[in-house]
Amino acid sequence: MNQDVIHPITTEVLQRLAHTPDSRMRELMTGLVRHLHAFACETRLTDAEWLEAIQFLTAVGQKCSDQRQEFILLSDVLGLSMVVTDMNHPTAEGCTESTVFGPFHVEGAPRFKAGDDIALGASGEPCWVQGRVLGQDGEAIPHASVDVWQADAEGFYDVQRADLQHLQARGVLETDAQGRFSFRSIVPEAYPVPTDGPVGGLLAATKRHPWRPAHLHFMISAPGYRKLITHVFRRGGEYLDSDVVFGVRDSLIGDWVHQAPGNAPDGSRFETPWWLLEFDFVLNVER
Amino acid sequence: MNQDVIHPITTEVLQRLAHTPDSRMRELMTGLVRHLHAFACETRLTDAEWLEAIQFLTAVGQKCSDQRQEFILLSDVLGLSMVVTDMNHPTAEGCTESTVFGPFHVEGAPRFKAGDDIALGASGEPCWVQGRVLGQDGEAIPHASVDVWQADAEGFYDVQRADLQHLQARGVLETDAQGRFSFRSIVPEAYPVPTDGPVGGLLAATKRHPWRPAHLHFMISAPGYRKLITHVFRRGGEYLDSDVVFGVRDSLIGDWVHQAPGNAPDGSRFETPWWLLEFDFVLNVER
Repeated sequence: MNQDVIHPITTEVLQRLAHTPDSRMRELMTGLVRHLHAFACETRLTDAEWLEAIQFLTAVGQKCSDQRQEFILLSDVLGLSMVVTDMNHPTAEGCTESTVFGPFHVEGAPRFKAGDDIALGASGEPCWVQGRVLGQDGEAIPHASVDVWQADAEGFYDVQRADLQHLQARGVLETDAQGRFSFRSIVPEAYPVPTDGPVGGLLAATKRHPWRPAHLHFMISAPGYRKLITHVFRRGGEYLDSDVVFGVRDSLIGDWVHQAPGNAPDGSRFETPWWLLEFDFVLNVER
Repeated sequence: MNQDVIHPITTEVLQRLAHTPDSRMRELMTGLVRHLHAFACETRLTDAEWLEAIQFLTAVGQKCSDQRQEFILLSDVLGLSMVVTDMNHPTAEGCTESTVFGPFHVEGAPRFKAGDDIALGASGEPCWVQGRVLGQDGEAIPHASVDVWQADAEGFYDVQRADLQHLQARGVLETDAQGRFSFRSIVPEAYPVPTDGPVGGLLAATKRHPWRPAHLHFMISAPGYRKLITHVFRRGGEYLDSDVVFGVRDSLIGDWVHQAPGNAPDGSRFETPWWLLEFDFVLNVER
């Protein structure tokens, strides 16, 4: 690669963009054109390859719908989403690391009380999740909003099930005076991202599997602290070292510990074997 | 910009792509990921800007239809199409330069004889176009296929007019034993690319006009020679120095010369004022 050779057309395009009124827009467009042209020149992109790229991007756009965001999926599998997440949410000393948001969050999910079962019928082995939301100095953060969502045992989120009339395996909790939260749900399992679209074709052509390791999504916010968007991954599960969207961080791997039937931490009963996850989150202060 | 700083995620993605079976696919994906990630890192792309880009690309894909290719238009206005054209079709000594193909060519356009009127009712001032198709040593190329297409006086190609039942202002001619071709048509006029889609929004946000200077499209092919895809632009017309798709080359500007009513070069009549364009094309030999 030689970044120093600028194609004459590139120079012409950059001159044309110099009149962009918004300086940030100008900066972004300048960077985009430089990299786009350099990519084409360095790889000596052929007419046929250019057309194939046009057709691929068109197919990605046409696959998008209210239920499906194929361009986010493309960004995810190319690692771009994780780069953007990492750059914009650097981890302060002692704080919980961020990872990708993903396309399956729902605004206004149902609110639950501590110990409630958020699964609402979603398939999977029962589990109890509890932890604390803390500040950097170990201070408890009360009244933090803990928004959690996850796939079921078959690897589907509720919003992917067209026949489902209600939300499942997602909800919003609030921490108590000691910063604690808890809920019942199901154990997450590994699942493949959708492969019936053009991104699935790209994964196949690059000989990559489409799997994400088992995880719970968390979005945690509290006044005075920076919002945290992250996952807790399941230790011992498959694909931890090859997450298709590059989202795994060692510090985010948690232990689901198998339990015999008996009492949950709040004294309620599990009549069948269940799993216990304990995981604390540390938020950074708002700057 | 600093190309030397590679984000750890970039390294991870490149490692994952290393197993791509097809070596050219691997080369292209590697270059793409490097530039895509470097663009995000250098510009410090924010979450909100990333999402805006996702939404923009989605809208571009959704605007595409059988009649409209918004991704080609995006490539055109970013100068990418012209870079790819230039790189893949270098101009040999004495040969005619290439320029962008554009989205309005039609396979299997009607065939015409020398001197026929290809306008078939398209609006515009009448003109006569003639020239020769030659080899690099000045040799006439007989039986060359001369495929020509153009917009009408209102700036529309026939395929953009949903109400039109037949093709207009396009056709395929064949050179005679002396390499000559000729046809009647209409004088081309400047026209704007479609601005009712997301690319129109991008042009507005970067304060660029959407106009292409007046031109005729030519695709010329003959056995033993490289296919030539080019335009002839109209000297004296507007936007020659600011073509929205960066397609103008000085050598491709031709003179439409105004004529009083009278005889066309073949002895047929023009009852009203008309324009004469004479333009020769020089093809490169097939390598």
